[in-house]
Amino acid sequence: MDAPLDGQVPDFHAVIPAGGAGTRLWPLSRSGHPKFLLDLTGSGRTLLQATVDRLVPLTGPDRVLVVTGARHAAAVGAQLPEVAGGAGPERVLAEPSPRDSMAAIGLAAAVLLERHGEDVVLGSFAADHVIHGTEEFARAVREGVVAARAGHVVTIGIAATGPSTAFGYVRAGDPLGLEGAPSVRAAAGFTEKPDEETAAAYLATGDYRWNAGMFIVRARVLLDHLAAQLPALHDGLRTIAAAWDGPEREATLSAVWPGLTKIAIDHAIAEPVAAAGGVAVVPGDFGWDDVGDFASLGTLLAGEGGAGGTLGDDASVLRVGAADALVVRSGGRTVTVVGVPGAVVVDTPDAVLVTTREHAQEVKAAVDGWRARGRDELL
Amino acid sequence: MDAPLDGQVPDFHAVIPAGGAGTRLWPLSRSGHPKFLLDLTGSGRTLLQATVDRLVPLTGPDRVLVVTGARHAAAVGAQLPEVAGGAGPERVLAEPSPRDSMAAIGLAAAVLLERHGEDVVLGSFAADHVIHGTEEFARAVREGVVAARAGHVVTIGIAATGPSTAFGYVRAGDPLGLEGAPSVRAAAGFTEKPDEETAAAYLATGDYRWNAGMFIVRARVLLDHLAAQLPALHDGLRTIAAAWDGPEREATLSAVWPGLTKIAIDHAIAEPVAAAGGVAVVPGDFGWDDVGDFASLGTLLAGEGGAGGTLGDDASVLRVGAADALVVRSGGRTVTVVGVPGAVVVDTPDAVLVTTREHAQEVKAAVDGWRARGRDELL
Repeated sequence: MDAPLDGQVPDFHAVIPAGGAGTRLWPLSRSGHPKFLLDLTGSGRTLLQATVDRLVPLTGPDRVLVVTGARHAAAVGAQLPEVAGGAGPERVLAEPSPRDSMAAIGLAAAVLLERHGEDVVLGSFAADHVIHGTEEFARAVREGVVAARAGHVVTIGIAATGPSTAFGYVRAGDPLGLEGAPSVRAAAGFTEKPDEETAAAYLATGDYRWNAGMFIVRARVLLDHLAAQLPALHDGLRTIAAAWDGPEREATLSAVWPGLTKIAIDHAIAEPVAAAGGVAVVPGDFGWDDVGDFASLGTLLAGEGGAGGTLGDDASVLRVGAADALVVRSGGRTVTVVGVPGAVVVDTPDAVLVTTREHAQEVKAAVDGWRARGRDELL
Repeated sequence: MDAPLDGQVPDFHAVIPAGGAGTRLWPLSRSGHPKFLLDLTGSGRTLLQATVDRLVPLTGPDRVLVVTGARHAAAVGAQLPEVAGGAGPERVLAEPSPRDSMAAIGLAAAVLLERHGEDVVLGSFAADHVIHGTEEFARAVREGVVAARAGHVVTIGIAATGPSTAFGYVRAGDPLGLEGAPSVRAAAGFTEKPDEETAAAYLATGDYRWNAGMFIVRARVLLDHLAAQLPALHDGLRTIAAAWDGPEREATLSAVWPGLTKIAIDHAIAEPVAAAGGVAVVPGDFGWDDVGDFASLGTLLAGEGGAGGTLGDDASVLRVGAADALVVRSGGRTVTVVGVPGAVVVDTPDAVLVTTREHAQEVKAAVDGWRARGRDELL
């Protein structure tokens, strides 16, 4: 049968790793108030909330699990009362310290397996990406769940809008011919971020798509792959998960968590399993942006004809000879830009940043610079 | 006899017109808090205070007269307690409304003539210029007073540091051979701001200097020239001055002031009198800057090798790929500039301005833009 076109997907759980410093969006994003807690689109919903809003139609609020750092757990709970405040077991998992995406998603998989058993299919979606096209997103996820039930590790391959050098790519191989998931193909392999020439060559083949780090997989399948690839990490996560909902959680975390291997799920699972033929790719033809820096945010917020966007009240922004300036107003002041094409101005209560879209990637160096001066209170 | 080399100059009074909106320095300079009330050099003294500091050795505090707008009189008094608070008649003259420099200086001349009689020599010096080289300044003024006593309208011709297109020029003619004022020459004429080619041609002759609007002249001579050139303006100012220190001041001001001709002293006196041979120029080889815009302020504050200057605490400024950025910190926030060569960032409690030195003159357009939006509270 085809994947159902609407309604909740049985046994499907959304896992949302909510981490990452977002230093390229400093001083809007801070270590204590990272990107996923921010409304970067002016929609009135933060990136985390929008991620949940997108998934709840597929799962209901009871089957959303957020994995975040202990210091952000309270803020996550406040933003997601329907997830954090519902009945049943805790659905905001707090990590004692960052251990990269494999530990975060692996912990969620192990906890879900403990709580809900062998039928659990999980889909992992970052908390800080922007997606346009909710219906197409849902279609891709529904097909992905079908492929996951068939035993595959499924990744969503995003339709590239250009030869970006900021993302990795996944190459789609032959169609898998799965009933109910007609668009799913084998994943022939993953690539790291390419140079522009290579990226253009990828796109010319028609087989490459952006790897957005979205995975759909049965919890059992994921953990079995992990056991094969990184048995110590697997065993540690299973031990923690077995104790999670009981009185020994803290003691077990203290004993086991600090020793877990720090590794990204792409390296731990996706790449080796793809090489062995175990990964599938479902094409996702929706708009996607990881809002990785202010150039990306500027594109996201741009008006018609590339006019500069404003995050915050645009009536308090004046552009003279700087029509495309991006202005982020979280400090309450008026902002005036005179004659700086491509300007990026970020006004916050304690820090003002001025750069250009062209130099957006170098904002990380500013964070490093303030840290070197011992001004950690700004970071 | 030569002009004395130090000590106060008998009968010499300093007149300081303190006006001008300084819109090219917005939002640092505001209509309610204009440029002359600001410390733009980080010296701890405002431009107005530094102007007085430079003149008091020549006049003593009792012979300094400031002419300013009524709305700024209290602030001027607070900054100059030794001028405003001394014994004797009032030395901060408040204009009911701006009537340009001829009315301001003419009023001062007429009041001084009333108060102190025919021997008064006045020197008029703007409140918002920066001068480096106090000794050379004093020497030029002392020679200027000698030439003024001989009946000339004397202007100080500033040694040009380059073919500026931002200033008018004065052309020096033959030496006047005045005893005690050996450097004084006839003024062959004034020019408006030239283009760069013309300015370079001027400097190649060796006879042209910047006209900084500094005039030294006997009060009686100035008023007689004014009576000949603009008799109605002369008569109005004399009427007001006669009433100034008595009970009819307000009534006389209300009746007469609004009808006074708005004209700059250069056009009213300097140009026509120079054409008739009545103006002398004394060379001033001191550093001078009118700090007319943020490019000028940037040059004034620049560090070694053109490194970017900071007005305010530099420890809270971080420059990454923007070594020459000018940062003005009056808002208390940290400022970070990444990859914007020539950047100008002005942070104030209610307005942030971002521009470049190249576009510094266009800041005026920003002021116009906010006014057009009805945001006069920002101006």
